[in-house]
Amino acid sequence: MSQNPDALTISFCPICGASADFLTPEGDSLPRHVCSRCGHINYQNPRLVVGCVAEYEGRILLCRRAIEPRYGFWTLPAGFMENGETTAQGAARETIEEAGAIVEIDAAFAMYSIAHIHQVHLFYRGHLPKPIYAAGIESLAVELFEPADIPWNELAFRSVKLCLERYLEDKKSGHFGFHEAELPPI
Amino acid sequence: MSQNPDALTISFCPICGASADFLTPEGDSLPRHVCSRCGHINYQNPRLVVGCVAEYEGRILLCRRAIEPRYGFWTLPAGFMENGETTAQGAARETIEEAGAIVEIDAAFAMYSIAHIHQVHLFYRGHLPKPIYAAGIESLAVELFEPADIPWNELAFRSVKLCLERYLEDKKSGHFGFHEAELPPI
Repeated sequence: MSQNPDALTISFCPICGASADFLTPEGDSLPRHVCSRCGHINYQNPRLVVGCVAEYEGRILLCRRAIEPRYGFWTLPAGFMENGETTAQGAARETIEEAGAIVEIDAAFAMYSIAHIHQVHLFYRGHLPKPIYAAGIESLAVELFEPADIPWNELAFRSVKLCLERYLEDKKSGHFGFHEAELPPI
Repeated sequence: MSQNPDALTISFCPICGASADFLTPEGDSLPRHVCSRCGHINYQNPRLVVGCVAEYEGRILLCRRAIEPRYGFWTLPAGFMENGETTAQGAARETIEEAGAIVEIDAAFAMYSIAHIHQVHLFYRGHLPKPIYAAGIESLAVELFEPADIPWNELAFRSVKLCLERYLEDKKSGHFGFHEAELPPI
């Protein structure tokens, strides 16, 4: 999660280099940055952050962040989905990159729309076939936590906290659902 | 769904107008278009298409496309999610824009990753409080279809067909789940 989440002000066309104007293209309903020469339209759309709750024998994999925002806080392995991958592949890739762990993805579990930062956070349920993990370059530490030991006051993001709470509730109930919520500005 | 789904080749920095290089930034794992002067990194990420299966007294709302791709084919109301909205708000907005219908969104229903075109299609279940609808500028026609009358051979997209099939299966079974799949190139 190291990309700037804010919408960009685009001054130049990334294709031809001419100046860009901010106007509503014909047939569109919103203003876009449009090239004054070649007409290229710069759409900006929300980004998907994909991650997972990876479990090994009842313990949950968390990473302590080595990057801003929220340096030093704990998070589920998660990051921006890349072109050319599926949501589940993105969640597994982030788990390898941030936690050095190979996760088997089970099912989509929770989705949070965070409209004011143009993000959608999507978390999967998964499990580690083996308790092998290691901090990647974006993590200070990686640990498997018993539910009772989760550092609730040191979690990095609201979506992570909500997802973990829901996960433990569902686990207790014996049935995992799919959950979604909207996270407005605090 | 009128945006170009392909990844762009960026030649100029959209912020300062200098030339952009294609290289892997320090600490990153993938090449990006990076400005040779100001260092701005142009991330390109998958886009979310949000839509819904909107029902009125057992009939389902479909739109006949007035735009490419798939001009003249039938689709669920759906389109690219915009910055500043939630996934559900995006689905409801597209239903107003394409089908002139106010839909009440019930729950997330199906999600399809289409990695080769960098898209994720997310469909909600919803219902129309009133049978009021009208073709928007991107639609040739809008109709409520009985399940038996759905034009299966004239549907615009695989994700729409799969979603409708799942929807009718779930409706028959009396329980709506959340479904996901990966749609590889045909």
